[in-house]
Amino acid sequence: MEIKIVKKILEKNDAAAGELRVLFAQNKILSVNLMSSPGSGKTALLDRTLEMLAGDLRCAVIEGDIATTLDAERLARHNAPLVQVNTDTFGGDCHLEANMIAGAVEQLDLDALDIVFIENVGNLVCPAEFDLGEDMKVSLLSATEGEDKPLKYPLMFRVCGTAIITKCDLLGVLDFDAAEAADNVRKVNPDARILQTSAKTGQGMHEWIALLKERLGEKQ
Amino acid sequence: MEIKIVKKILEKNDAAAGELRVLFAQNKILSVNLMSSPGSGKTALLDRTLEMLAGDLRCAVIEGDIATTLDAERLARHNAPLVQVNTDTFGGDCHLEANMIAGAVEQLDLDALDIVFIENVGNLVCPAEFDLGEDMKVSLLSATEGEDKPLKYPLMFRVCGTAIITKCDLLGVLDFDAAEAADNVRKVNPDARILQTSAKTGQGMHEWIALLKERLGEKQ
Repeated sequence: MEIKIVKKILEKNDAAAGELRVLFAQNKILSVNLMSSPGSGKTALLDRTLEMLAGDLRCAVIEGDIATTLDAERLARHNAPLVQVNTDTFGGDCHLEANMIAGAVEQLDLDALDIVFIENVGNLVCPAEFDLGEDMKVSLLSATEGEDKPLKYPLMFRVCGTAIITKCDLLGVLDFDAAEAADNVRKVNPDARILQTSAKTGQGMHEWIALLKERLGEKQ
Repeated sequence: MEIKIVKKILEKNDAAAGELRVLFAQNKILSVNLMSSPGSGKTALLDRTLEMLAGDLRCAVIEGDIATTLDAERLARHNAPLVQVNTDTFGGDCHLEANMIAGAVEQLDLDALDIVFIENVGNLVCPAEFDLGEDMKVSLLSATEGEDKPLKYPLMFRVCGTAIITKCDLLGVLDFDAAEAADNVRKVNPDARILQTSAKTGQGMHEWIALLKERLGEKQ
């Protein structure tokens, strides 16, 4: 009984995600779903990304949070359109669903955009199960979290084509082996593209920007 | 319909949690549920705690993970009985439920124990909703995650009587204001007991051990 209900929710979600996928394709928009534990640096990555793309590509952000508009406020200094989705109006959901994105997208002028970033709720488990019609699923793994996370939360790293090891400016002070972390990503997803970044120092950011442009190019 | 089902799951959980609460009380056992984002240092805290309590109090650990036995392996050097719960046998659940704890407790000799630690699945959202019959709900917030987490994940910090700011050895290299983080915990839970620890240097660990002993004393 319970399993049937879960299946029904996912089927409904997949239908809405399919419509979003068509919408993004028609508008030649690259959509990027950023997922990670709370505090892995999704907002910091976005902040730096918007800064580097300013005047070059037209970006919008859909901010997913259970509560507060703190992340949207952090990003407000950019000219990018921002739509906040607070899941506490959806019962405090621990993840974004396609119907929430559909509602947010209605508030955006898709003709005037190249990339839509979706910052998911901080959660390394549940968001992995929900297709948002996005072109890129990206997981962030902070260097402070430990190398074992891809093995312990395999679904997330399996569904994400790109994994970003963040906060690499701290590598010198942590007992963290970035090569081992990358190996662990590959154990659950042999084809994953793996980047190492620091939003603070800018390390690895040009490779990330280049990847976004490459994927956007494929949509034109 | 969906809401009714969720309510039913929670009601069933609460009934199982009630039975656990009686069982822990009858055996004068302090039960401690550790919850946090992935990589906030639950296992490191436990590792140091077991070391400090060795020969003094009799501890057991119930290890919750979606997949792998990595955390249990890290703790295996202690003499504490360990029971691994992998939720992938429960559909990959993103949290522990009372029935899983009941199954684990059956494998422990309760007569021979003072404290049962439960390390929940790394997730700052869903575990907050599930009563495990525990005496203490403890949330960990790593200094690397940012001060805003209590505001963005309010339910977790509201249900936890104790909040531990971990990885405080990194305070010197992070832009993290521990006083602001503590203020944010108090905003959602004015009565919270807030500790600052580093499992690496031992900072704050004596206060944590004293708190455990104080709470265990209340159960005798």
